[in-house]
Amino acid sequence: MKNVRSIKTSTRVCAIIGNPVEHSLSPAIHNAAFAELGLDYVYVAFRVEDVKQALAGMRALENFCGMSVTIPHKIEAMKHVDDIEAVDRQIGSINTVINDNGKLLGLGTDGPGALKALADAEVEINGKKVLMLGAGGAARAIAFTLAINGGPAAIEILDINETILQELTADLTAGTQAVIQSNKMTDSSLVKAMAAADIVIHCTPIGMHPKEGSSIVPIELFRPGQVVFDIVYTPLETKLLADARSKGLQVISGVEMFINQAVLQFERFTGADAPVEVMRNVVMEQLKS
Amino acid sequence: MKNVRSIKTSTRVCAIIGNPVEHSLSPAIHNAAFAELGLDYVYVAFRVEDVKQALAGMRALENFCGMSVTIPHKIEAMKHVDDIEAVDRQIGSINTVINDNGKLLGLGTDGPGALKALADAEVEINGKKVLMLGAGGAARAIAFTLAINGGPAAIEILDINETILQELTADLTAGTQAVIQSNKMTDSSLVKAMAAADIVIHCTPIGMHPKEGSSIVPIELFRPGQVVFDIVYTPLETKLLADARSKGLQVISGVEMFINQAVLQFERFTGADAPVEVMRNVVMEQLKS
Repeated sequence: MKNVRSIKTSTRVCAIIGNPVEHSLSPAIHNAAFAELGLDYVYVAFRVEDVKQALAGMRALENFCGMSVTIPHKIEAMKHVDDIEAVDRQIGSINTVINDNGKLLGLGTDGPGALKALADAEVEINGKKVLMLGAGGAARAIAFTLAINGGPAAIEILDINETILQELTADLTAGTQAVIQSNKMTDSSLVKAMAAADIVIHCTPIGMHPKEGSSIVPIELFRPGQVVFDIVYTPLETKLLADARSKGLQVISGVEMFINQAVLQFERFTGADAPVEVMRNVVMEQLKS
Repeated sequence: MKNVRSIKTSTRVCAIIGNPVEHSLSPAIHNAAFAELGLDYVYVAFRVEDVKQALAGMRALENFCGMSVTIPHKIEAMKHVDDIEAVDRQIGSINTVINDNGKLLGLGTDGPGALKALADAEVEINGKKVLMLGAGGAARAIAFTLAINGGPAAIEILDINETILQELTADLTAGTQAVIQSNKMTDSSLVKAMAAADIVIHCTPIGMHPKEGSSIVPIELFRPGQVVFDIVYTPLETKLLADARSKGLQVISGVEMFINQAVLQFERFTGADAPVEVMRNVVMEQLKS
């Protein structure tokens, strides 16, 4: 490990905070990207319980310049930064903090990461009907980003939890120009919604390791021409995506959103264009190992 | 710089805080030592103005495990740690903070580093008359350490600033068993003190770069058998030491104290025996470049 010798007093520090953090891929992804571009940065991981004090520390530690924020701190962290981007205030969570000379700016890259994943796959959102399955934190971030920046004909949201469903629906209706529809997730509402959807975005944990065998969408509901995006990335191809692919549909893995949220963070941390393929390779290596 | 790739979520972080920090040798020294022993640590530098918030952050950032504290925070930092070693409370400053699961322990390694430098040079302190030139922060740390752990026959202290001289004398007299003498630094008090001293420890900035040409001790005052230790280490051999050496005396450079304070910090950070020669080589390379 003769590899930290080049760290100097000028080296800038980025870190992920969360609890737990020991399985985070972020140090591997960002350090590989710093190395690729020869940037004088290092990225570490801090398990944190007291996010307020952690952010106070970041403010005081001058070249602690960028932070990724993960569970369970994505909402709490908003209370302790100095400014938040407008859309992220609406979304109600952040995953990134930038230290601008002691002033902390909070923002989210999950929604933009999802939007970029769709754009990279050349999926047209403008004028299309988007179906969001799930109304939790990730769905909020994606729905707001698509509603504001995607130009969909409509966004329909289904969830079994009516409380979060109503809250997201009300917030999107009040805060964006998009047409928002929502229904409690049932067998029949899912049939109807799938019949209408051009783009299906799955934002529930169903199908995630170790329950790879499950899918929320019965295979017979897929229709030709639909695009199916699953934000789950363990496994890389969920049953939902495998089923959609078997029906000839275009599919996008959650790993693309995961890579792109990191790419967008990296670009905020450094101001440099991210070496996307290097970052993708690290993610793929780690997820396959 | 393909060298930060091996940093993982488990990597522990140490850092120096101070203001300024950009010329600190500590990152180079400690990272070389981590690499030599294959320890999963990284050492960075943070310029800090608000030491209270920086220490609050350290407490919250779980694997931010060790900190070196330098000017101007060595006194202020004491207020914001959870515990301080007894001798360092007497000295009134710390240069090291250990994060023990969110409990911060403050301690100093300057005095022990000086004592170790004397021990490494096989200088016997027990029963000897020690002359300290200067009564500032470094002199306090060294005088307390020698008074408590060295067993000198007496410690005489000279300074031009009678306020800090009286304060240190009173504190040493009250807090240790050693015989303490002090006098305002004048030409005649210096002559008398040099005539009595076995070990001379120079703790003022005189002779430090860029004023290498100066020495506080007229060359004719050196006596055979004296040991002369200068805590200044830029240049590596001050005029004081060059003069003493020219008279055949044993001399010890401040670089030995500097290396040993880092060695003792490293051992507190890691629990491992420090690779002293690796650390010495880094210091020597940096100071010669």
